[in-house]
Amino acid sequence: MRFLVPFEATRPKTRLNPVLDAAERAAFARAMLRDVLAALRAAGHDPTVVATQAVDEGDVPVAVDDRPLSAAVNARLGGTDPVGILVADLGLVTPAAVGSLVDASDEGGVAVAPGRGGGTNGLVVSHPDFRVDFHGVSVRDHLAAARAVGAETWVVDSMRLSTDVDEPADLVEVLLHGEGEAAAWLRDAGFALDIGEGRVGIDRTV
Amino acid sequence: MRFLVPFEATRPKTRLNPVLDAAERAAFARAMLRDVLAALRAAGHDPTVVATQAVDEGDVPVAVDDRPLSAAVNARLGGTDPVGILVADLGLVTPAAVGSLVDASDEGGVAVAPGRGGGTNGLVVSHPDFRVDFHGVSVRDHLAAARAVGAETWVVDSMRLSTDVDEPADLVEVLLHGEGEAAAWLRDAGFALDIGEGRVGIDRTV
Repeated sequence: MRFLVPFEATRPKTRLNPVLDAAERAAFARAMLRDVLAALRAAGHDPTVVATQAVDEGDVPVAVDDRPLSAAVNARLGGTDPVGILVADLGLVTPAAVGSLVDASDEGGVAVAPGRGGGTNGLVVSHPDFRVDFHGVSVRDHLAAARAVGAETWVVDSMRLSTDVDEPADLVEVLLHGEGEAAAWLRDAGFALDIGEGRVGIDRTV
Repeated sequence: MRFLVPFEATRPKTRLNPVLDAAERAAFARAMLRDVLAALRAAGHDPTVVATQAVDEGDVPVAVDDRPLSAAVNARLGGTDPVGILVADLGLVTPAAVGSLVDASDEGGVAVAPGRGGGTNGLVVSHPDFRVDFHGVSVRDHLAAARAVGAETWVVDSMRLSTDVDEPADLVEVLLHGEGEAAAWLRDAGFALDIGEGRVGIDRTV
């Protein structure tokens, strides 16, 4: 299956700046991208990187598109063949995890892999009218958008696909469960485990 | 399959005290426990609550054991039949997620469901010599302990099983993906989504 892998090549992983400088963030982001591309190919799929500026990933096709993420992806949807989308910052990805997303879409419609905190880390789109919007609580919005065009929806239950690496908290999971270049890069950079506390905001309205 | 569900009944979910008072933490913890028990039964299993003090869960057997968690669980392992263990604070649990853990153990040995941050949220133990130790980076320790007794190991890739609810950050996931009493309890208590940032500590040694 054709898979789009959006990649922020200009200023990647800015939320990691408490622990990595700009050059390190760029190198770590590329290591995660390579893990995602390798997992997709090992699972038998054909990735294309959709990058904000030119990057060289050897024999992997790279499309440069400086539009916002959702617009760049939507410009490549709408055909009759299923298209997969997988974010580039999955430091825990494996071929089996990719397979769980693709298997979920066996019956067509739209399969979604939720990310932590309401994001969407992967999709397989088998409906020509479905479009993405990665802003806000996108996992909920994508399921609603799929139903709105009459597509069946499937949700994949995968820790590996749910763990996009955005901030220092997430590096813990890469160190624990990563099996590729990203985990090796962190270890080479001197990172080790020191588990603390996590925080995400909630709002009590009553 | 027999499943042990350890439950801290004395002072549950203390790390939620920034957003819930003691009575609310107790009520929310019980709602999550009921979700876990219901998912286990819907998946065809026989849960027993192993609680630090008496709780009434209707027709679900409750064993009161005031020993530390690992000791209370280990006192109930060692037989020839497989035994499952599932933590009580899985606000995203579903029967299908339980099934993924049990299916992973089809070939015996020890199946593990990792929790975020290095914990262990579920196990299926089919080796009489395996014992648990929930301290520290327990997912890693449990895999090593299984190999040490010659048991094959299996790791389940499930976002729902990996999301134990310990702190305010985790309530976001319950509100987004929970399908049971815990999610309903939060909504009834007036919680709604306001997604912010997450943090977990790491240590750079070089």
